[in-house]
Amino acid sequence: MTGRLILHEYAQSGNCYKIRLTAALLGRALERREYDIMKGETRTSEFLATVNANGRIPVLQIGDRFLPESNAACFYLADGSALVPADRFARADMLRWMFWEQYNHEPNVATLRFWAGWVGEANLSEAQRAQRPGKRAAGEAALGLMDEELAARPFLVGEAITLADIVLYAYTHVAEDSGFRLADYPNVVAWLGRVAAAPGFVPIDA
Amino acid sequence: MTGRLILHEYAQSGNCYKIRLTAALLGRALERREYDIMKGETRTSEFLATVNANGRIPVLQIGDRFLPESNAACFYLADGSALVPADRFARADMLRWMFWEQYNHEPNVATLRFWAGWVGEANLSEAQRAQRPGKRAAGEAALGLMDEELAARPFLVGEAITLADIVLYAYTHVAEDSGFRLADYPNVVAWLGRVAAAPGFVPIDA
Repeated sequence: MTGRLILHEYAQSGNCYKIRLTAALLGRALERREYDIMKGETRTSEFLATVNANGRIPVLQIGDRFLPESNAACFYLADGSALVPADRFARADMLRWMFWEQYNHEPNVATLRFWAGWVGEANLSEAQRAQRPGKRAAGEAALGLMDEELAARPFLVGEAITLADIVLYAYTHVAEDSGFRLADYPNVVAWLGRVAAAPGFVPIDA
Repeated sequence: MTGRLILHEYAQSGNCYKIRLTAALLGRALERREYDIMKGETRTSEFLATVNANGRIPVLQIGDRFLPESNAACFYLADGSALVPADRFARADMLRWMFWEQYNHEPNVATLRFWAGWVGEANLSEAQRAQRPGKRAAGEAALGLMDEELAARPFLVGEAITLADIVLYAYTHVAEDSGFRLADYPNVVAWLGRVAAAPGFVPIDA
């Protein structure tokens, strides 16, 4: 890996935390640039032109190149390390969980957290209100599926921690911010403890 | 790669087509098992217990192992081939587009296609109706971003076709089924032609 690593981020976002946690477990230093998403700092013409045309953080900058999408940034950092399984099926199975996180977990668990803690109950649009019951049910189904799978093994892909665990830890460990009850998912709670015990672990507010 | 490859699918789903297209470009044979998602055939207790606890297709079966999530299945098939760049940054950039597809493109372009062509206007719930304008705008933004990026290079990651192009081809080439106007995105139209010209290409209804 060559070039300075700069994380363009909003620190409280779980998607940004994933990348910091990956770097920490790998012992890699990251510079950090904070943007206030509530003030539209990722929608300025400069940000759109130089950092990410999609107007979102996180973006991992590697030298003069920019890599959007949190899970892709984690993969870039961990590629070739023990956080990405060497076995072909296990490597794809890790990516399975990472795609599942972006489709089935983040749009429910993370979005409800954002609506509750940042947008605020009083400011939700009619369309957002109409989506809440569906997102609640889908978030519970996602946590339930993790709980079922984690009954059988210590980490999502097997015996050792991989990027699948890191990216799913990010919003799962703060799921109570969105009103989910983690105590309903005991295997998930035990797994959160195993991830937090990994050498080099850093919390979201570090 | 060892073991028989069986695709558990619903053939008209773009997510299933991605996997068939990847296999075709690689010259790999896939057996196919069709499930009628409109009759709940992926929610039976047998399907949930043996194929995918998440109750969704596609699932790629490799011998006696099951791999859900379309983009992970594509990665499994193509890992080590020219469809996955050997360069570390390019490989992560390919995954960037694949994660973006699942978060920014599929939930808008594919979901509107499903609502229009399978669920039907008259049967949409209130929550689905409330989401349509947002999904329309987000789908247009996704197609617009692709159009902007494809002005600069022939394929999403650079000079050659990768999995990023395959997974985004799947729902983009049928985006008019969802009411999007592809003629508004001329660089996307040209790119669709380049993907369809790849040796081994198969159409969605093959």
